[in-house]
Amino acid sequence: MKVRAAVLEQFDRPLVVQELDLAEPRAGEALVRLVACGVCHTDMYTASGADPSGYAPTVLGHEGAGVVERVGEGVESVSAGDHVVTLFSPQCRKCVHCLDPRTNLCLAIREQQNRGYLPDGTTRLSHEGEPIRHFMGTSTFCEYTVMPEIALAKIDPEAPLDRACLFACGLSTGLGAAMFTAGVTPGSTCAVFGAGMVGLGVVAGCRLRSAERIICVDPSARRLALARGQGATDCWDADGHAVERILEATGGAGADYVFEATGLVSVMAEAVQATRMAWGLCTIIGVAGKGETLEIVPRLLITGRRVCGSSFGGVKGRDQVPELIDLYMRGQLHVDPFISHRMPLHEVNSAFDLMAAQDGIRSVLMYDGV
Amino acid sequence: MKVRAAVLEQFDRPLVVQELDLAEPRAGEALVRLVACGVCHTDMYTASGADPSGYAPTVLGHEGAGVVERVGEGVESVSAGDHVVTLFSPQCRKCVHCLDPRTNLCLAIREQQNRGYLPDGTTRLSHEGEPIRHFMGTSTFCEYTVMPEIALAKIDPEAPLDRACLFACGLSTGLGAAMFTAGVTPGSTCAVFGAGMVGLGVVAGCRLRSAERIICVDPSARRLALARGQGATDCWDADGHAVERILEATGGAGADYVFEATGLVSVMAEAVQATRMAWGLCTIIGVAGKGETLEIVPRLLITGRRVCGSSFGGVKGRDQVPELIDLYMRGQLHVDPFISHRMPLHEVNSAFDLMAAQDGIRSVLMYDGV
Repeated sequence: MKVRAAVLEQFDRPLVVQELDLAEPRAGEALVRLVACGVCHTDMYTASGADPSGYAPTVLGHEGAGVVERVGEGVESVSAGDHVVTLFSPQCRKCVHCLDPRTNLCLAIREQQNRGYLPDGTTRLSHEGEPIRHFMGTSTFCEYTVMPEIALAKIDPEAPLDRACLFACGLSTGLGAAMFTAGVTPGSTCAVFGAGMVGLGVVAGCRLRSAERIICVDPSARRLALARGQGATDCWDADGHAVERILEATGGAGADYVFEATGLVSVMAEAVQATRMAWGLCTIIGVAGKGETLEIVPRLLITGRRVCGSSFGGVKGRDQVPELIDLYMRGQLHVDPFISHRMPLHEVNSAFDLMAAQDGIRSVLMYDGV
Repeated sequence: MKVRAAVLEQFDRPLVVQELDLAEPRAGEALVRLVACGVCHTDMYTASGADPSGYAPTVLGHEGAGVVERVGEGVESVSAGDHVVTLFSPQCRKCVHCLDPRTNLCLAIREQQNRGYLPDGTTRLSHEGEPIRHFMGTSTFCEYTVMPEIALAKIDPEAPLDRACLFACGLSTGLGAAMFTAGVTPGSTCAVFGAGMVGLGVVAGCRLRSAERIICVDPSARRLALARGQGATDCWDADGHAVERILEATGGAGADYVFEATGLVSVMAEAVQATRMAWGLCTIIGVAGKGETLEIVPRLLITGRRVCGSSFGGVKGRDQVPELIDLYMRGQLHVDPFISHRMPLHEVNSAFDLMAAQDGIRSVLMYDGV
């Protein structure tokens, strides 16, 4: 079938919206008609060419939500008409990691996905007979996508898809980092560095886990206002004194749970310093630049601070994305404030411009019209 | 009373064995006749002047074991005749940290202890009327010491004190890092960098926790032989390829539990790299040089490695040192191989020389004769 897609033809050039060919789903795959797709930093990062593992041509996009059109042979967990969220982090439910409660890093299709192929090593996308590689196993800057069923989370059909799509990456990453990776405990003091989509999700996750105090640090007053709306109790300008202020506010001890959601290694170092001695946990979520390292004074560890990282919030996608969306459906999560712009597919490059200008939290591409 | 002690009069000079005055124990304190004392790197580190928080004159020594002679007012947990191990890391059983199962960092007497005083802000040691400060709250390079009761672990009186003293620092630190801080699980793969007293204790702790594979990495073939005796299944020369070899041996994944017991930040970085993705835990035990930092590539964290540190093995001294000694008494721990030299107090400087020459694991000062 013919589909319209935003193609990364060359790094550091605008995406080109054009017609591609999309082949039918094969065994274990499903064809999904996408309804909405968030535009995430990872898409822009890859488009820029800065990601050393990036490739082109490819169809970017991974924060998608839509409806299953038809499925390939042997597909049992989704069927035509199901509403789904696309998972760049799949869940095969069979590999050693899927069977372990401690991790969400499914190993099933990792290698092929990283190289831009579906699990059988081929692509469903092509242009004039030339294969076009898939991006993050999702390629959701497109009206339709073919994906493995293990990478589709079946969600409540009542959930509005333009909001559900945020659970495909940024929002689940933040929520999960607080709720699953760190496992924030009731009554604790939390500190969140960064109030973008992920940091705001962390704030909401801390609130859902009944943290007593949630400190959010960001240079933008507008984002801090959004953080307050998500449950932050203290919103502080990132003025370079955040660590001192957090220590001061906690009797010199530091916060029980600290989260870094900026991708800056200098902020990661601050996050470790702001973590409580004796039992504090610092969770690194942001993706650092190539070759950059986080520097930690070992004494901070010896005196009881722990440091970990979180990928997709530790969320086991097929099991837990539906649960997170249910929280939203029950009114426990405010998702609307995250969506700053809605636009059609052919305006995808403006979404990148808005992101570069730090204008708003999320642009959502609407494939059925804005 | 008059006591013989090894005094650090000036940094970077040999200790001077001399007669000092030791005052009677005050409220909450006990007078302990020391029988044996291990000589630890921390003693030598402070003697060298490299520790920026060090002070002189002071009586060094902290790995002591002995017998309570008499107690001050209000002391209830120990009495004359009790066999005790000295704790530089006390356990008041009342502070917010003592009441929490997650940490052993008692806060009760921290500040005074760090400055060289007993909890009431004075010293019991003096020389010709001039106060001599206590070291680590213990000052066990001396025939007798006065210490707070919260820093004395009452142990099985059958336990030989020349072996029990090792539980006052190095051995408990290693055992505890594996058993309590990391909580090694049965069937796991462990890797230990460094086979000094602490690293060997870690190996033993991993064995006691039924690890399936225990890899030990050290440049000394003699120490590796000791590691094998403690239960290491794989003993590898620290040839600069340890990380590759550990990854190779674990199908590319890394070890479930990795321990660093060298104090070298370059080895700490290797330890993180050798840790298993998805759920591996790297425990830093060694004390790094002033101003040195551990550099971590954040991607290692994002993909599920966790990093923590351990102080005194996470051991709550009064509760758990006796339990560890009981393991020895039941034949589950081989302590004898750790003791490479026994010597009288006045040979304490030779113990430092042996340590500097990396000759043997532990010298033990014997106050009742060798």
